[in-house]
Amino acid sequence: MARILTVTLNPALDLTVRLGQLAPGEVNRSPLMLTHAAGKGLNVAQVLADLGHTLTVSGFLGEDNAQAFDALFKRRGFVDAFIRVPGETRSNIKLAEDDGRVTDLNGPGPQVGAQAQQTLLDTLERIAPGHDAVVVAGSLPRGVSPQWLHDLLLGLKAQGLKVVLDTSGEALKQGLAAGPWLIKPNTEELSDALGRDISDLAAQVAAATALQAQGVEHVVISHGAEGVNWFSRGPALQALPPKVSVASTVGAGDSLLAGMVHGLLSGHSPEQTLRTATAIAAMAVTQIGFGISDAAHLATLESGVRVRPLTEE
Amino acid sequence: MARILTVTLNPALDLTVRLGQLAPGEVNRSPLMLTHAAGKGLNVAQVLADLGHTLTVSGFLGEDNAQAFDALFKRRGFVDAFIRVPGETRSNIKLAEDDGRVTDLNGPGPQVGAQAQQTLLDTLERIAPGHDAVVVAGSLPRGVSPQWLHDLLLGLKAQGLKVVLDTSGEALKQGLAAGPWLIKPNTEELSDALGRDISDLAAQVAAATALQAQGVEHVVISHGAEGVNWFSRGPALQALPPKVSVASTVGAGDSLLAGMVHGLLSGHSPEQTLRTATAIAAMAVTQIGFGISDAAHLATLESGVRVRPLTEE
Repeated sequence: MARILTVTLNPALDLTVRLGQLAPGEVNRSPLMLTHAAGKGLNVAQVLADLGHTLTVSGFLGEDNAQAFDALFKRRGFVDAFIRVPGETRSNIKLAEDDGRVTDLNGPGPQVGAQAQQTLLDTLERIAPGHDAVVVAGSLPRGVSPQWLHDLLLGLKAQGLKVVLDTSGEALKQGLAAGPWLIKPNTEELSDALGRDISDLAAQVAAATALQAQGVEHVVISHGAEGVNWFSRGPALQALPPKVSVASTVGAGDSLLAGMVHGLLSGHSPEQTLRTATAIAAMAVTQIGFGISDAAHLATLESGVRVRPLTEE
Repeated sequence: MARILTVTLNPALDLTVRLGQLAPGEVNRSPLMLTHAAGKGLNVAQVLADLGHTLTVSGFLGEDNAQAFDALFKRRGFVDAFIRVPGETRSNIKLAEDDGRVTDLNGPGPQVGAQAQQTLLDTLERIAPGHDAVVVAGSLPRGVSPQWLHDLLLGLKAQGLKVVLDTSGEALKQGLAAGPWLIKPNTEELSDALGRDISDLAAQVAAATALQAQGVEHVVISHGAEGVNWFSRGPALQALPPKVSVASTVGAGDSLLAGMVHGLLSGHSPEQTLRTATAIAAMAVTQIGFGISDAAHLATLESGVRVRPLTEE
């Protein structure tokens, strides 16, 4: 099993509010409110922990509402290397009505100053040795520039870590220039970062070839229910997930990423790596949460994944 | 200065979410989200602390999201005698739109079991001596019966404390039977608890006389901007607040209650007691929060309060 570091620069406190029907301007009573510590890097960490790996978690946390995060780290046995910053970690509120409508209310999160950014760089430099890989995932908080992210990735790479990046927009664009080991954008995110449409396969092959030339060893492009394309040194592969009934897509992309990192660090065959990763993502879709709650169910899903060489048709 | 205990059986974590305009079913970005520890007994405690008194705070707190409460107790120097119960203290979310519309989303709060209830009784029995008064304020959590509240009040009274009660519905009805020292319902709450309309003065006089006969020494009936009527052993008094521009009525009733307790425990004249209490409540109305932020402003408001003997006209 590997030692893996995940960096979540902009975590979120998710608050799900169940409602019969939202009545704006009125007093609404909710029968169920649930808070949980979230953020892409932390989601990835939880799936990797389910798979048996040892995790260190880092990034920035608002010190005024860190309790749910502290509880998660303790419960999952994560080594806590988060930098505390003044203020509250952003809250993402989901109003879930009985008819299935969901209203998102996303908060701003703390401003992260230059000193906290330097403290994180110093901390990562100190703790990075001894880790096999680092997953940097999610958006950037206020005050942190895409250029800073680029430099962070270069620094982690210089320390010999396999650097995994999962972000979007300008952060992905600048992050790509640092040549991370593995990326997992969806078609839109990668089109956006590259400034050209990559929805057809020929465009994806060309984009992956260019990215590999600048040091990105693994280009994993997700298409949700339509599957995953994986470009690397070996033959390109495509995986098609089994049909599942969708409970919630929360954490599905993070599950796919965790599964890819797991297979690659464990020395599994490419075919097995992609099959398991796709099954873990499909499993996330069948749950309100995510994670590997049932090994037998995972095995069933794995056998339903179709993996095939990716060829232009 | 007095030593005062406040008991908040059902505190709340207030989360204010600023929004341009709420778009149901969409992703809404909020420029400002603010969390604060709330609940009637805790509001009263904060105003009493502003007035120079020493506070012990108690009640039930969900252990999973107590951080904001712990921070408040530390910041204000409150002695913490809260009983922790499994789960989360209820969240009350306020969506405040730019046009002034407010949508409330109120959570359920933890279930409080028999063991936690007994632990609170034991704790209060141990700590009550040495306090001059106890303020029991707010609603009851799930699992706590109005009869239990009645017994709690009797127990506190038996220990020689002045018992102040501010609640509503069945809890007020049963609480009144314990003969608290002071109550502060509004007209509707008292009508509801007594099962008869007390909106006219003659009915209030009759109700107050009956309540005094069963041991309620001070009957304070609030009418918001229309003022306060106070029935006690001396001549009944009425206070009319100065006209102020309303920022938020949050905490105004709690401020009035704190002011009454302050004046009575400090040996101020009835006229001065009611004048100051009314001014503190008016001050709360001028703020988004509440509390005595500006002594000069309070003095100005006090001079604008009209206090007069309450006579049937």
